[in-house]
Parts: sequence; C-alpha cells; structure tokens
Amino acid sequence: MTTVLKLGGSVITDKDREETLDGAALETAATAIGSALEGSPRGSGRAAPELVIVHGGGSFGHVNASEHGVSTTSGSHDVGAVHAIHGAMKTLNRFVLDRLLEQGVRAVPVHPFSLGARDTDGTLTLPSEPVETLLAEGFVPVLHGDVVAQRDAGVTIISGDELVTELATDLDADHVGLCSTVPGVLDDDGAVVDRIDSYEDVAAVLGASESTDVTGGMAAKVEALLALEAEASIFGLEALSAFLEGESPGTTIARE
Amino acid sequence: MTTVLKLGGSVITDKDREETLDGAALETAATAIGSALEGSPRGSGRAAPELVIVHGGGSFGHVNASEHGVSTTSGSHDVGAVHAIHGAMKTLNRFVLDRLLEQGVRAVPVHPFSLGARDTDGTLTLPSEPVETLLAEGFVPVLHGDVVAQRDAGVTIISGDELVTELATDLDADHVGLCSTVPGVLDDDGAVVDRIDSYEDVAAVLGASESTDVTGGMAAKVEALLALEAEASIFGLEALSAFLEGESPGTTIARE
Repeated sequence: MTTVLKLGGSVITDKDREETLDGAALETAATAIGSALEGSPRGSGRAAPELVIVHGGGSFGHVNASEHGVSTTSGSHDVGAVHAIHGAMKTLNRFVLDRLLEQGVRAVPVHPFSLGARDTDGTLTLPSEPVETLLAEGFVPVLHGDVVAQRDAGVTIISGDELVTELATDLDADHVGLCSTVPGVLDDDGAVVDRIDSYEDVAAVLGASESTDVTGGMAAKVEALLALEAEASIFGLEALSAFLEGESPGTTIARE
Repeated sequence: MTTVLKLGGSVITDKDREETLDGAALETAATAIGSALEGSPRGSGRAAPELVIVHGGGSFGHVNASEHGVSTTSGSHDVGAVHAIHGAMKTLNRFVLDRLLEQGVRAVPVHPFSLGARDTDGTLTLPSEPVETLLAEGFVPVLHGDVVAQRDAGVTIISGDELVTELATDLDADHVGLCSTVPGVLDDDGAVVDRIDSYEDVAAVLGASESTDVTGGMAAKVEALLALEAEASIFGLEALSAFLEGESPGTTIARE
C-alpha cells in the first residue's frame, strides 16, 4: 500500500506573510501522520504503509519565485534566484521534517533540485530509485516544490502538484491525497462535490473558464489527478486522519 | 571540456577538530576556481569549461558517520543517523557554496542522498540528468560525500571518491583532479611519483599491503582512477590553478 500525500503550501504556511509558517496547522498534520504510521508498526504483522509526503511552497516558495520571475514555464539563469528559491524551500522542508520527526515519523528530505531535470520541451525526468529505496527501507521521503534545471531555460519551477502526479505514476501509488485549505472541490453553492470521474465534470462543476487555468488552480489539480490510475482525494486538514486510515474524504477523483 | 574536481575533505576542513572548516584553505581553493572560470567567460569565443565539484567530508562527515556506525558497506536504519550525517555534510556544502559564490562561481548544490540509491549488492545508481542539465546551463554543480539509501541495509555512505569516478564515467569527463593534502602520490622517499599507468605500479609504489586498503586510502584512490577513460591527476592545493588551466600537476594517473 503506497500513499502519496501532498500538504498544500497554503495549509502549512501563512500565505499572507512572507516565509511564515502556520505552526499550528503543521503540528496538526504531523500529529495525524505520526498517529497513522504508529498504528501499523513494522513487525506488527500488518504491512507497513509506504508514505511519500510532498509539500508546496506557500509563502516560502511563491514570493521568491515571483520576485525572480521564475515559473513552471519561465526560466532563469540567475544563480541568485536558484539559491533564493531553493534555500527558502529547504528552510520550509526543515520545519516540516522537524515536526514529523517529533511525532516519530522517520521523515527524510529528498530535494527535487538534486533529483530532477527537464528537457527543452519542459518534460520532466524524475528518477524514482531514491524514493523507492527509501520507502522499502521504512523511511518517509519528504519532497517539496522546488527549482529544477531545464535545457535552454536555466531553471524552472517544479510544483508540489507536478511532483504528486509524477510520484503517484512512477511508484504505482494506491492512494493519493491532496490536503488543502478547503474540505474538497466546491460547487457554485459552496458544497463539497462528492465525486468527479470525468473531464466533463470538471468544467460542469468549476466552470469552463477555470478549466483553462494552468497556474495550479483547482481545475488544473483535478485534471492532473483524473489522469492517474489511482483514486485521489482532495480534502481539508480536519480529514487528514481519515484519509490516512484509508478512507476517501472530501472529493474523490477517479476515472470511471 | 568537462572537468571533475574533488576537493579532499581533509583539505577544506580541520581533520582534528569536529565540524571545523579550514577557512583559509577553502578560500584559496575557491579563489583558484573563480579565477579559472573567469578566464573563459561565456561568449568569449572559447568554450565554457564545464566543471563539476565534489567535496569530501573531512571532520564534518567522518566523525558523524563513525559515531553512528555507518560506512560504505555497513548500513543503518536509524533516522537520527541519516539526519546527523546528511545534515553535517549539508552544512559543509553550504560553506563551500558560499565561498565559491563570493568568487563569482555559479555554484549550486546537488545532494547525493536525494539523487542516488544502491541495490542489495551495493551497486550505485546515480542518475546523471540533473548534473548534465545544470552543466549545460552554465551552473557549477557541487556534490559531496553523503548517505544514500541501500536496499536491505537502510543507508550507507557514498564517499567523495566514489562520486568522482561515477561522475567522470557518466559525464565522459576529459579531465579529473583530486586536490589533496599532499602534492601527489609519494614514493618511499617522499618524492612525488610523476606517472602511474598500471595496477602493477600501484603495488610497486605504495606497497602490497596498502593496495588492499578499501577505506579511501591512496592506493584505493589510484586504482579507482586507473579504471577511468580520462586522465586523472592527484595534486596539492598549491597546484589547483595549474590543474584548472589544463595542466597535469602532481601525479598523473592514466592507463597506457
């Protein structure tokens, strides 16, 4: 049982204040993860769940990236930009690791800048051996949005969402979850949509204009998750424990 | 022209004091590297030299590794050991990067723990795309001795020397240099051996007993370098500039 969990950047940071952690939210998330993994210790007879965590940048990554004019499609050769963005994301990653370690989670860092690269078309290569081997050895790899080298563009951004879909595919994940600031995909009345199983649903629920959003908005997230083999869930922090227990809280996204 | 340069851990740290930098030596090395790269700026008509730097652990890595009983062959599943060793090496890497950046070198970190993995036999997988892409984009990747995940062993150590031979092979390097605390391979009289071109020479020069050393001693370094296609040099810090200018100072190691 392999689970890929994304902790949204806006869940674990204060999006309105530059490089500010939301310590209480991160603590809540780390506690839920610690409890879930404790329930299935190695040697208990139950298979150890293999968990990969990805976190977004929130107020650590986005400000630095936009200040330097770097995005998922617009690159930079400025070594200062690399250090500013990568450094801020490593700082946030350190906070996440520390909170997880405090909860007994065997969390270790995997930095996408060291691991991934894009070709001239932006196609990502993200070798899976390190994450697979860490999982097999009982560690919990923690990745994050980052810069990556791209041919003819210097470095571009790799988002947490892109890492989630890449890892879910490469690891043949059974369960994919996006822990968000909202309790799921919301319809026009603000109610949580229970299930989305086709691209047509995305436009119907989120509106046609939003479905052209490529900046990581909800429609883009849903479309990327629809492309996966695994069933995915989008849910709020209050439902993280339920997700880690194998439930499908919030909005379930799965092709029919 | 691709060059792989190793800065020995004992060159840039004070080996006798735990986690202590040799700031003056690192400054000397960074200045030499900065000057060498400045001599061939992009757009000068001369091909930009592609330089990969690897540094050892010195008093940062070795103490932490031995305290936790982790070596290149003996693994650990202790998450505290991973953080102690990887964290100490990242601290040293940060010092190296900062000194290089001060000298105008477009240095960026590549952490082997994020990139590499070993199978049950200890065979290393170290994907080359990130380093190749960074080089093509004009950056100077700086790697370091580290822990890496290994199947059925948790994590083991990857030494700077192993990284050098791996990178030199994968990148088809033209020039490989080990900047050491000695001016080259020394014979029984303490004189620098000019050239070693066969395994027989190793034993003849260093003695049969030393050639069974697998802990990163001089004989092991020479044997690993003899296996490379590229010509390699072992030299002291005073000869780093000469090496970067394309000379072959110290001891030249090349198969006939």
